[in-house]
Formats: sequence, structure tokens, C-alpha cells
Amino acid sequence: MYNHSPNGYTCPICLGVKGVESNETLICKSDIVFKDDLVTAFIGSFFIEGNHGSVIIVPNEHFENIYDLPNKYAHRIAEIAQKAARAVRKTYPSDGITILQNNESDANQHAFHYHLHVFPRYKSDRFFEQLLKTQKSTPEERQQYADKVKKELSTA
Amino acid sequence: MYNHSPNGYTCPICLGVKGVESNETLICKSDIVFKDDLVTAFIGSFFIEGNHGSVIIVPNEHFENIYDLPNKYAHRIAEIAQKAARAVRKTYPSDGITILQNNESDANQHAFHYHLHVFPRYKSDRFFEQLLKTQKSTPEERQQYADKVKKELSTA
Repeated sequence: MYNHSPNGYTCPICLGVKGVESNETLICKSDIVFKDDLVTAFIGSFFIEGNHGSVIIVPNEHFENIYDLPNKYAHRIAEIAQKAARAVRKTYPSDGITILQNNESDANQHAFHYHLHVFPRYKSDRFFEQLLKTQKSTPEERQQYADKVKKELSTA
Repeated sequence: MYNHSPNGYTCPICLGVKGVESNETLICKSDIVFKDDLVTAFIGSFFIEGNHGSVIIVPNEHFENIYDLPNKYAHRIAEIAQKAARAVRKTYPSDGITILQNNESDANQHAFHYHLHVFPRYKSDRFFEQLLKTQKSTPEERQQYADKVKKELSTA
């Protein structure tokens, strides 16, 4: 419903979920902080100035957006979003959490596979001003965030 | 966990859920588009220029933020968010949907009762620039949006 992915779209998120590391996906195996039979969570590649290290949660099966997402995935994503929010809040540590999920091109959805962002927030950050001015990070830059979230999720 | 509501806080969202109309809550009965034993959905009072008529979904029981929200509420909120997203997309109609949920003062949470926003998005809107510059709407301005969402949710 209301899909925008072009014909023959190679989904970068499906590749990442499968553990493929290539030029077509920005997701590395070392970015992944959680995976079960329904969902995968990883540190997002694009960093916002002042709010580095967001966690992205996706269904393992391909659905483009919220309109078509089956409840079993939506429920599990909500559960992992809470765990990721607690982990980021405690270990980064951040001063708050913003959950964001965009649907369709005109709502700033760029990767056409449902994904929910768990962003760290900080006092006096300029988050919403900076949100669309992202910079591609390196796997090394993401590692410290992945380590913190992974460790916390494994003990929570 | 990580709560910011002051001692003796009168929760405006709890009042709205109970159907109280007073100066302490901005929610009117006519704003409510859905209610069951777990959650309530209503048209938000604060309008963003270019993106009027967001749907807000809340748990009927008081929890300040995502950290403490029990799964039964999180699951039902996810289900109603999807239905509200489809209804807004189709009936306003909008060009996309953004889901947003802020936790704690430093993440721009103002009402200290968990609430998830379902925003209509439009081509070339300046949504993230406008997001924090909201204006209080009148019940009459909200009515057209409430009517559309309510009608669609009752037939979906």
C-alpha cells in the first residue's frame, strides 16, 4: 500500500538482515545489536550531529512501511524499541529518547523497508534542526555504540 | 523510571481519557476518535503549520514514558497507530505519515503521560523545521479531522 520502491529494488535492509556486507547495504555485521526470528536491531549508519548512535529496528521480512506491517512484527518492534530506549538512555548515557518512524518519500523515508529509529536526545541539542543533515559514519565510529547497546540488551 | 512530572502533577491526558473537559486539559470529548479498554486516540490540540490534525494515541492508564510502558499497552498502541496512519493517509488525504514519540523534557516531551503522534506529511512540507513551533487550535478546527479519522476507523 502506497509503495515507492522502484522495480527491481535491491533492499539494503534485507541484505543487512541476512548478514550480507556489500556496497549495496551500509549495514555491517558489527552494527547489529539484537536479532531474533522476527526483528533485527542495529546502529544506523547516518549520524546526526550531536545525536550519534541511533538504534534502528526492522522486521526481518520485507514490508515497505507501517501500512502493511503485520501485528506480530509491530508488537515485537515495540518491545525491542523499549529495551533499546532503556539501553541507550542508561549506557550512552543520554538525557532522553525520541522514537521516529517515517513512511513514504514525502515523509523523508529513504530506505524502502519499514524501520523505526530510537534516537538518543541531549539537553539543548538541536535535534529536529539537524535531523535531515546526516553524515555517513564509519563502522569504527559505530562500534562503541553497538558495544554499549549489545551489552545492555544481553543483561536486561 | 526517569520521570519529570512535578509532585502533585494533574495529568491533562488522564483527564482527557476520563472525558473531563476543563481548563486543566486541552482534550475535548469531540477530539476523541477511538477508545477501548486499553488506549484512547484523539486529535492533538497543537497544530503544526502545514501539518494540521495529528492523531495522538495514549494508554488509558498513567505511564509517563516508554521506559515503563507495559507490553499490552505498547502492542495495542502499535495496532491503533497503524489504523490511524492508514485513516489519515487516505482521508485527509496526506502524502505520507510520520510517527513520533518523545520521552523526557530534554527530548521535547511536554505532557508527562506517554503519547505517540501520528502526523500527516505532505510533499515539500517543512515538517521538522515547523515541529516545535506549534499553535493551539480550537475544538472547531479539530472537528473536521476527528470526523474523518473516526469515520474511517469505524469502517476499517
